[in-house]
Amino acid sequence: MSVEQFADRHIGPDPDAEARMLEAVGYATVDDLMDAAIPETIRWHGQLDLPPAASEAEATAELRALAADNTVAVSMIGLGYHGTHTPAVIRRNVLENPAWYTAYTPYQPEISQGRLEALLNFQTMVADLTGLTTANASMLDEGTAAAEAMTLARRASTNRSPVYVVDADTLPQTIAVITSRAAPLGIQVRVLDLDTEALPADYFGLHLQYPGASGAVRDHQKLVDAAHTGGALVCVAADLLALTLLRPPGEIGADIAAGTTQRFGVPMGFGGPHAGYLAVRAGLERMLPGRLVGLSRDAAGDPAYRLALQTREQHIRREKATSNICTAQVLLAVVAGMYAVYHGPDGLRAIARHTHTTATRLAASLRALDGVHVVHHEFFDTVLTRVPGRAEAVVTAAADHGVNLRLVDADHVGISCDETTTDAHLRQVWRAFADTTDTTGTTGVADLPDAPPTALPATLLRTSDFLTHPVFGAHHSETAMLRYLRRLADLDFALDRGMIPLGSCTMKLNATTEMEPISWPAFADVHPFAPAHQTTGYQRLIAQLEGWLAEVTGYDAVSVQPNAGSQGELAGLLAIRAYHVQRGHGHRDVCLIPSSAHGTNAASAVMAGMRVVVVGCDTDGNVDLTDLDTKIDTHRDALAAIMVTYPSTHGVYEPGIAALCAKVHDAGGQVYVDGANLNALLGYARPGHFGADVSHLNLHKTFCIPHGGGGPGVGPVAVRAHLAPYLPGDPTGDHGTDRPAISAARHGSAGILPIPWAYLRMMGPTGLTRATAVAVLAANYVATRLRAHYPVLYTGNKGLVAHECVLDLRPLTKTTGITVDDVAKRLMDYGFHAPTMSFPVAGTLMVEPTESENLGELDRFCDAMIAIRAEIDQVATGRWPTQDNPLRNAPHTAAMVTADHWPHPYPRSVGAYPDGVDPKNKYWPPVRRIDGAYGDRNLVCSCPSPQAYED
Amino acid sequence: MSVEQFADRHIGPDPDAEARMLEAVGYATVDDLMDAAIPETIRWHGQLDLPPAASEAEATAELRALAADNTVAVSMIGLGYHGTHTPAVIRRNVLENPAWYTAYTPYQPEISQGRLEALLNFQTMVADLTGLTTANASMLDEGTAAAEAMTLARRASTNRSPVYVVDADTLPQTIAVITSRAAPLGIQVRVLDLDTEALPADYFGLHLQYPGASGAVRDHQKLVDAAHTGGALVCVAADLLALTLLRPPGEIGADIAAGTTQRFGVPMGFGGPHAGYLAVRAGLERMLPGRLVGLSRDAAGDPAYRLALQTREQHIRREKATSNICTAQVLLAVVAGMYAVYHGPDGLRAIARHTHTTATRLAASLRALDGVHVVHHEFFDTVLTRVPGRAEAVVTAAADHGVNLRLVDADHVGISCDETTTDAHLRQVWRAFADTTDTTGTTGVADLPDAPPTALPATLLRTSDFLTHPVFGAHHSETAMLRYLRRLADLDFALDRGMIPLGSCTMKLNATTEMEPISWPAFADVHPFAPAHQTTGYQRLIAQLEGWLAEVTGYDAVSVQPNAGSQGELAGLLAIRAYHVQRGHGHRDVCLIPSSAHGTNAASAVMAGMRVVVVGCDTDGNVDLTDLDTKIDTHRDALAAIMVTYPSTHGVYEPGIAALCAKVHDAGGQVYVDGANLNALLGYARPGHFGADVSHLNLHKTFCIPHGGGGPGVGPVAVRAHLAPYLPGDPTGDHGTDRPAISAARHGSAGILPIPWAYLRMMGPTGLTRATAVAVLAANYVATRLRAHYPVLYTGNKGLVAHECVLDLRPLTKTTGITVDDVAKRLMDYGFHAPTMSFPVAGTLMVEPTESENLGELDRFCDAMIAIRAEIDQVATGRWPTQDNPLRNAPHTAAMVTADHWPHPYPRSVGAYPDGVDPKNKYWPPVRRIDGAYGDRNLVCSCPSPQAYED
Repeated sequence: MSVEQFADRHIGPDPDAEARMLEAVGYATVDDLMDAAIPETIRWHGQLDLPPAASEAEATAELRALAADNTVAVSMIGLGYHGTHTPAVIRRNVLENPAWYTAYTPYQPEISQGRLEALLNFQTMVADLTGLTTANASMLDEGTAAAEAMTLARRASTNRSPVYVVDADTLPQTIAVITSRAAPLGIQVRVLDLDTEALPADYFGLHLQYPGASGAVRDHQKLVDAAHTGGALVCVAADLLALTLLRPPGEIGADIAAGTTQRFGVPMGFGGPHAGYLAVRAGLERMLPGRLVGLSRDAAGDPAYRLALQTREQHIRREKATSNICTAQVLLAVVAGMYAVYHGPDGLRAIARHTHTTATRLAASLRALDGVHVVHHEFFDTVLTRVPGRAEAVVTAAADHGVNLRLVDADHVGISCDETTTDAHLRQVWRAFADTTDTTGTTGVADLPDAPPTALPATLLRTSDFLTHPVFGAHHSETAMLRYLRRLADLDFALDRGMIPLGSCTMKLNATTEMEPISWPAFADVHPFAPAHQTTGYQRLIAQLEGWLAEVTGYDAVSVQPNAGSQGELAGLLAIRAYHVQRGHGHRDVCLIPSSAHGTNAASAVMAGMRVVVVGCDTDGNVDLTDLDTKIDTHRDALAAIMVTYPSTHGVYEPGIAALCAKVHDAGGQVYVDGANLNALLGYARPGHFGADVSHLNLHKTFCIPHGGGGPGVGPVAVRAHLAPYLPGDPTGDHGTDRPAISAARHGSAGILPIPWAYLRMMGPTGLTRATAVAVLAANYVATRLRAHYPVLYTGNKGLVAHECVLDLRPLTKTTGITVDDVAKRLMDYGFHAPTMSFPVAGTLMVEPTESENLGELDRFCDAMIAIRAEIDQVATGRWPTQDNPLRNAPHTAAMVTADHWPHPYPRSVGAYPDGVDPKNKYWPPVRRIDGAYGDRNLVCSCPSPQAYED
Repeated sequence: MSVEQFADRHIGPDPDAEARMLEAVGYATVDDLMDAAIPETIRWHGQLDLPPAASEAEATAELRALAADNTVAVSMIGLGYHGTHTPAVIRRNVLENPAWYTAYTPYQPEISQGRLEALLNFQTMVADLTGLTTANASMLDEGTAAAEAMTLARRASTNRSPVYVVDADTLPQTIAVITSRAAPLGIQVRVLDLDTEALPADYFGLHLQYPGASGAVRDHQKLVDAAHTGGALVCVAADLLALTLLRPPGEIGADIAAGTTQRFGVPMGFGGPHAGYLAVRAGLERMLPGRLVGLSRDAAGDPAYRLALQTREQHIRREKATSNICTAQVLLAVVAGMYAVYHGPDGLRAIARHTHTTATRLAASLRALDGVHVVHHEFFDTVLTRVPGRAEAVVTAAADHGVNLRLVDADHVGISCDETTTDAHLRQVWRAFADTTDTTGTTGVADLPDAPPTALPATLLRTSDFLTHPVFGAHHSETAMLRYLRRLADLDFALDRGMIPLGSCTMKLNATTEMEPISWPAFADVHPFAPAHQTTGYQRLIAQLEGWLAEVTGYDAVSVQPNAGSQGELAGLLAIRAYHVQRGHGHRDVCLIPSSAHGTNAASAVMAGMRVVVVGCDTDGNVDLTDLDTKIDTHRDALAAIMVTYPSTHGVYEPGIAALCAKVHDAGGQVYVDGANLNALLGYARPGHFGADVSHLNLHKTFCIPHGGGGPGVGPVAVRAHLAPYLPGDPTGDHGTDRPAISAARHGSAGILPIPWAYLRMMGPTGLTRATAVAVLAANYVATRLRAHYPVLYTGNKGLVAHECVLDLRPLTKTTGITVDDVAKRLMDYGFHAPTMSFPVAGTLMVEPTESENLGELDRFCDAMIAIRAEIDQVATGRWPTQDNPLRNAPHTAAMVTADHWPHPYPRSVGAYPDGVDPKNKYWPPVRRIDGAYGDRNLVCSCPSPQAYED
């Protein structure tokens, strides 16, 4: 018997509020409302087969039991995942701080200056360490970053060859992801041992690892020069920690650097999440995929950060997009950047020296053992040993001592040192070798020299400075760091301050009980390649989660590997492609996409090697079934799939979805339902049941993984049984054309899967269903209250919306000049994050309140929107000029409204505390409206010099 | 080998900054500075015998090992400590949030409105639940709260009898604390079984437990009436959770209620910390000890919170004080209050019903067993069973099943249910009884009826409402709670925003690595009376900590039991008293106290049954040794002790301390050195070495326990060997006149002892010594920079101060009318918490920067003070009127400086962003200057009705 129902904490409105909202919308019960809103053609009347809701204490206890089934060993496996000390001040005040983790992607830069500065630190760190000019604001992991580097190289290369050369001493999972990505794009990957094999005559790009996966540090200068001669571009996948001591890629002429920042304070998490990175030399910056933070200026001319070059993003480019990257790994990039801020250049060098010295000490002690050969003379952190026939015995012996080593093959063992390596660890490793070696004369104690000679090549030592910007020198005490983190957090608006009613983004509660377990060492400190018997807790958790996700979506199989929604889309489309190919329908390559679709859809289709054909929408916003018929007829034989979002991106339950599925199936195509809007379906409809073949889910939307300011996300792919054979494979094991490697780690961002697990476990079937109903009720409540002030653009059955509603500003813009931008920025003055702007229709705002906002907050939002409408009317009547009014001047900073001179035609108080804003609960945007175009013309994407603020 | 040195994170100035500071102060090295500052008479040149510094990771690993040595059992022992679910949102956002835990006591109310509101919620909760009119802002625990209730009753009673009656069914540790406190005050405690024994003819007060320690719920009405007839006052120690269902003390006429709020979401922590409470009926509110939050109004006439009736506090009353309570348990009171806010009245009732129902179900199932007798028919949560001769067997059997029960005596077992009790727990308990009972016919499965009849007396059911204020109904969803906590935190200024240079308060870094372990279940979820074999981790940690504290202070023995500095003082003085008594010098009762002493000293002396004799100070602020001679001569035969602070409260190393010790010793007295200023000594001088016999330490100052907004504190008492026999005893075991019970739990606030443990472990001998030197350097740097602008009142050797400096504002006040208050409030506009005001000398500011502030922050403070001096000069020159200038109008709220009308003779920008304040990093005080006197005249100490804000 449990006193608490978690659902009552997750869902904002209590029964009394729910009754009042229903009354406003005009329904007696939520059942009546849902019966009216959801077309019977898709309605599912079953009962979710999930365990009944656990209380928070029960779920925590179960997670503790799962965690206890994992073994936390000392990890010396390496291969891109390393032990690291997350500075406690950063763990507590970033990773565990809702001000950071509940923030949204900084598309509204005026209220995102804190995380934008943190990301600029990250970019500066990557650019400095790699010796390149521009880094983006993070990638999903090293494997996908390397794959993006490949396509970037192809776009930029003057060599039209389809060949991409990958050095054999590259991380195996990186090779797997590159290969999987290359196939649908017609790129031929050639993996060559460049120590012994020659480069081919023609190729557009070359991928090198530095140091190599084997640990070897090689001088790549000649290879780079050779590639450039042929017009090819070179990507160096480099270890940032090694780059504090080694000459960086930029200084040997590399065009691109890619990699991971995991070892900069981010726990391994059984594979993720952590921030990958991508950096380019001057001249390539405008081709960078993903998000890029840059400096611009605000309406007062003061420096201000914002996302640069936004027009490159896939949501603008659609089928012309060159990448589908959308969500990044902001929260983890912030951690890695802050790690560099906290340690500074000297601190990082000291960590690198410790890492290197422990490796050289270990190598020296192992060399002293008969029968152990240290393969490379030049290495940074990884010692590769040859122990003919005994590798498995050594690895087993070490594991018995609590240390995981890398079993390379029957004769080789790899040992990677890191920040956390101690003498005790080295002695355990030495013992494992000594105990498995036929040797006489060993004393039983490792001889660890204090400071053996360096194993870094003298010619490759770094001589250039890095992290010279003052931010990397100013916050080295914990007090200073704590205040810096607080100060940045205070600049931003996140869910812990108020509603973020972003349509299609489902900004709902990220409950603390869901979040706490991800910090537990038994989940955080597990290497993705740890022996299976050490990870049974994770395996059980993942199997349960995949099962539950299959149940709620009506599919037969799920893979959690894709570490963002975009990756889930790609995985789903590749499954469809593979299915067609297996059935001898390899010619099917047309993907139908409605004009209302999220831009990622088209980009993913292109990446999956498909041709995009757009299907129009009717005036109600629904897919135009007549146009669909036409397009099917035209492409019947080539039809691979249709990709639709349900409920549609217009926030409506389209009645024709069942018919649509049937039509596509009849033509031999597969149906992909984008799961972005699943929050409107759970418990009421299941895509796998109403006709879809595959979906990706956004665990950072419906399933409560926080947005983290723009990642981490998780985008599992869910399929019906016939597509199950084509789900993602194991990047370091069984994978191939049928089972592609989508992410670098087998289970993607496993470290945050306790979050959706806990959500499903604590909501149970009843709670999930109620959440859906309240989310729909809340959207209809907002639509009802605002309809008289702003037209609600699309509705479905009985004039109802689904879980979001589109407010049409276009008529008001036409008559007053006040734009959606003005309204969005003015909402900041009222203490809100803006709804989604101009998506799916330019000139509109899309509002998704979610089930977690209580009636008080919903009303506060509606009141603000109504007050803003009254302000627009003041412009309409001419009382306020079009160019000088509280909307156009929004957001108002404190500095602006306290200025000694006030030149505006409305009082300061209207700027500062518009209708209903409590002065004691006022959020002050730190900058005025930002001029994005200025920053794009004057691109600055690393920390600006302090002088920039003085000008 | 460790890369990281924690000391480099803890200490703000890096070597470069240190060099610049030394240059400013005029010394070549810190050694030179310390040699010059510290009198050789006290200097200790040894090396601290502590383990060398561990890194953060190493200390964490050691603490994990200690934690692993504790066993977390299901606790059904009861006796005032109960299992409870800390709502995760409160744990993360209060207990683990530096914005809450690094805050200081709200003596500067304008920048403390958030925690003042939280405390008012706490007071309202206590007052409502107890049915009394006024509750204070928390006590240290139930035992000390009950003891304070006793002395309050004595002051208020018209009955002059020295007898205090305590019902025998009172918690044993409460009886122990009451008895220990009564003895030195001449109060005679009579413990009577009031079921069978008659009340005496004359007594001044009566203490009752409700429900009783045995679990019995009794109607106390007749006892209350009888007590009142004789002029006695009645204190009811009541369980607040039970009071949601039972008629509260106030409704049967009780004058006082005392108790604990631990079960309102505060982990047991092996005994603490948690918030005790004290509430009184109308008419007694001005006699309440401790801190009381009340409503007043600010300069704009708006409602604002502040500490009420401050003149009652011991620091004003000194030897006329009636209590030495100073630090409370603010952080835990906030948690308990927020628990009530989160659950609301219905939620609390549901938890109480669950608790009661599980108890009745258990009782029913046990009654069905032959040989088990349930003693009481009327109980709330605790079932007392009689199992003749088998009690130990039952308790052992239950422990084997992972459940701790209460072994009352050989024949009785007590079982307490709580919020966390599950059916599985009940079955384990039943099994323990069944397995140890000679019985036939038991099926082996407990028969747990679903809803047996209530065991609450029908005549005692609560009929009155409680928690009707809207705050207890508005934040029941996690999203709403999260935002409420964020909003309140944002109102306040704590160490996470900037420096809090409070003299004598040592507001230094509370490092995250020190803080994290207190949330671990293996430290948090341990009952103080758990079997010893379950708490070996705690015992080792405490033994190590006590040993390290003895080493750094030069004493021979330490007890961590006192859960605040005030309690440590009392414990130390009682040890001196007992020592004299044992030696046949019981007549020695004079305690010499310098006029510069902290008021607590005198209050503690009175509580220890001593007479206070004040010794004067000379013009340099040092103890006047001539006056000391005189006072010693006058009181030679009666001299018990002298109590001095070192360095003195003037922030100076007094050179005469060794002579002072010798004089007192020669006269047969003992020397008590208040350890408040230990941050100026560690590694350089040890009180136990330079002549003192006893000290208390403030672990929330020198040893990094955060101030928590006014508690928890820990005040261990440290003694030389001859006083060791008189250290605090075990409240539920070996205690008595010689070994008093100072706190309710054997190890006091054990749950937070990992903090000082980690600090000492990570700093090591070298780090601790360096911290002292940098603290002294920082104070001298501030004194050097500010001397030209404000006279530095006291200095010692070579014109140096110790770790703090007193700035004399009196000359400026005389010429300009600008007061210390004006300067303190103006500092808020600059983004600082004020230094200590008017202590130890009225009209001055005492600045203690600590070692954790880096040079940037020290300079920011000095710059602000210099800029303020320039502002004062503007008043002096007449440019700004005395009554209307930025100082007098400080602090400036955003609402004030954005007002449409600006009537002041200086620009808004001067009010908002004085010299050097970065608009992007501006802290806005939420209210204007508060009129404390108004609130004292119109006392409102529970949540004001919303209308209060509309007037």
